[in-house]
Amino acid sequence: MSFKRWEEDLIGLGEMGRKNFQRVESQQQLDNDKGLYRIEGTPACTKSKKYVIERMKEIGLKVRIDRVGNIFARKDGTKTDKGSVMSGSHLDSVLNGGMFDGVLGVVSALEAVRRINDEGFENERPIEISVFMGEEGSAFKKVLLGSLMLVGKLDLAEALAMKDDNGISLKEALDTHGLRGDFEMNLNDVEYFIETHVEQGPLLDQEKISIGVVENITGMLWILAYLTGEENHAGTTPMFTRRDPLIAAAEIVLLANKLAKKMAKSSRGNTVATVGQMVVDPGAPNIIPGRVRMGIDIRDSQLEVQNRLKNELISAIENLDALYGIKADWEIPFEHKPQSCSQEVLEVIELSASQLGIPTKKMNSGAGHDAQNIAQKVKTAMIFVPSVNGISHSPFEWTHWEDVDKGIQVLTQTIKKLSRL
Amino acid sequence: MSFKRWEEDLIGLGEMGRKNFQRVESQQQLDNDKGLYRIEGTPACTKSKKYVIERMKEIGLKVRIDRVGNIFARKDGTKTDKGSVMSGSHLDSVLNGGMFDGVLGVVSALEAVRRINDEGFENERPIEISVFMGEEGSAFKKVLLGSLMLVGKLDLAEALAMKDDNGISLKEALDTHGLRGDFEMNLNDVEYFIETHVEQGPLLDQEKISIGVVENITGMLWILAYLTGEENHAGTTPMFTRRDPLIAAAEIVLLANKLAKKMAKSSRGNTVATVGQMVVDPGAPNIIPGRVRMGIDIRDSQLEVQNRLKNELISAIENLDALYGIKADWEIPFEHKPQSCSQEVLEVIELSASQLGIPTKKMNSGAGHDAQNIAQKVKTAMIFVPSVNGISHSPFEWTHWEDVDKGIQVLTQTIKKLSRL
Repeated sequence: MSFKRWEEDLIGLGEMGRKNFQRVESQQQLDNDKGLYRIEGTPACTKSKKYVIERMKEIGLKVRIDRVGNIFARKDGTKTDKGSVMSGSHLDSVLNGGMFDGVLGVVSALEAVRRINDEGFENERPIEISVFMGEEGSAFKKVLLGSLMLVGKLDLAEALAMKDDNGISLKEALDTHGLRGDFEMNLNDVEYFIETHVEQGPLLDQEKISIGVVENITGMLWILAYLTGEENHAGTTPMFTRRDPLIAAAEIVLLANKLAKKMAKSSRGNTVATVGQMVVDPGAPNIIPGRVRMGIDIRDSQLEVQNRLKNELISAIENLDALYGIKADWEIPFEHKPQSCSQEVLEVIELSASQLGIPTKKMNSGAGHDAQNIAQKVKTAMIFVPSVNGISHSPFEWTHWEDVDKGIQVLTQTIKKLSRL
Repeated sequence: MSFKRWEEDLIGLGEMGRKNFQRVESQQQLDNDKGLYRIEGTPACTKSKKYVIERMKEIGLKVRIDRVGNIFARKDGTKTDKGSVMSGSHLDSVLNGGMFDGVLGVVSALEAVRRINDEGFENERPIEISVFMGEEGSAFKKVLLGSLMLVGKLDLAEALAMKDDNGISLKEALDTHGLRGDFEMNLNDVEYFIETHVEQGPLLDQEKISIGVVENITGMLWILAYLTGEENHAGTTPMFTRRDPLIAAAEIVLLANKLAKKMAKSSRGNTVATVGQMVVDPGAPNIIPGRVRMGIDIRDSQLEVQNRLKNELISAIENLDALYGIKADWEIPFEHKPQSCSQEVLEVIELSASQLGIPTKKMNSGAGHDAQNIAQKVKTAMIFVPSVNGISHSPFEWTHWEDVDKGIQVLTQTIKKLSRL
């Protein structure tokens, strides 16, 4: 098999953190390899950035690094007074992550610019490839770090002082790896932004459609609830004198599921609520639990629906004392609003796909992306390609080569069109 | 304050494992002391046994130790052909346990014999005080070890080979502490058995009644269920394509609670079901769980009710696949039948209390006791005294001195009466 250059890029980047770049389909196969841990500050992550910078320079792009390590590569346009068309994503991964998440958006943008160069296409607007710093938050515990900085939602000194699990600050990590620059990107100079990404959900794969056009990026919040009842002997405490916080927690689990299903049916169909975390203390079968800690994840692409779901669940949690004698505290550690994509950019993506004869599906993104930050200042949209079986954040993550290729074709045409708008 | 001899015994035994014998009412007070860890094989447990043996010999009793470390102390009767009246309990505790659980039954029997001696009462039947080995199972992971051995439900070689967490076998532990004997108690030589114990539940304390007369000792079983669904991204997996095992687990939690309440209402009122253990894997708020492990504790004093509750829950667990697409495995690691007490002995306890002017309450034991094993071969009953706030297996366990005194009075009269039946 001979590889195209974007295939070589994907394989090269995939191997920076894995032993072999190949589809993983069984646990046994996985045991023979190792997971992908391309966390910010690790040699594997730095190596991947240097690899990409080399590819950028190879085709004559001007590479600049900003003060938190975001990387930008510029191809000038024929009209210097026009805002640029930007495309990119991130290179860092979650712990034991997948080979396409993030990387795909960087490689797609790089390959698009190479094709534009090869064709001798004259872009009017400048084209910028972006590699955002620390999207996953695995090292510095702040998701979307680089794009938050760009839209002014993060203080520079605060960001540089953030420490990873080894006590190393972002500033130290960037300096060690030679990835701290002094460039300041001004988003007022950017007109359009497109992020290509794997869907991380099952819809495109199920419907065998190669291209998703993202209309909305989900809002998201967590409710952490701390339920306290009365720990007691499971044999000698009658049913009617118990204050068992797990009974209350089970009611909340079912309510969250029921409400999200109801709202998903009556709204745009993408409401989700998940109780992924539940810790029962002390946790022996013969002791009535004294405490239950639960983490609820709520997402919707419509702020009104997200708020309604949040409020109904909080109200149910606050009612636990009256209903079950369970003291319930709760907190919301973070809350992101849903973000709509630019209709103008969406239409250009759809037109490009249609001209290439590639069917598309309008959809929402259930995961968070740097695009949701950039969209606050720049006309933004996302292109999704299918995730096999909807699996992501896992070594089993896979996207078929032909879908990647279609994504690159659509992105290339979209950038070309936008660069002349 | 001057102490009676049984008060001195309780305090002496309590301090073998704690710094101070006193009621613990606050966490702060507890932090200044240390918990009680009188586990089989520890110096504290051995010291407590030697203390009791000394007290037994002091009043002329014949002390014999059997092959697994059960201790018996005999006061001969005037009629040598009659079966004995036995009373006793255990001296070992759970980890971080309470000061009355077990100890109280040993000290009460000792004090009863002392009073019988002091009065010059002539017992026809022999009287035996028993100290059962390893009731709590904290060291050798087999609850009711000593009494199981006595009723022939445990193989001697197997028992002696059991190891504690330090890899020390029961045989080694007994030899090290000089507590392995060669006596073989034959329960055919025992006519009656009475175990005095703290209730470990709230009923006597709530109703301000000092003496509980135990009619039934609860049956008990555990169901361990292993639910497997599909781990996935909480944001990108639509509600209607999920297979979330925590939803199924929550339904089982609520069903167990509902069924136990219903059965407790319609039967004798002591049905209990508890989900005390639930482990959600991987356990992050933004990941749909892949696996949930749960431990369910079921108890009833009627075998038919216990079986019905067990069967309804197992049937619900087996239905999870059809209802939710959740694969569910389950196992029952142990299952004890309920045990009725002897009506004859119960009546003697009630008559004794009534003659002393002490009100009693008929009740069931929700906890397991050595008495449930002995009852399989010997006419057996239990005397309960109140646990303040129903708390047990905890440093906060407490029983008021005056209730202990009433328990000893009733036990003494009961032993006297039975010894002449």
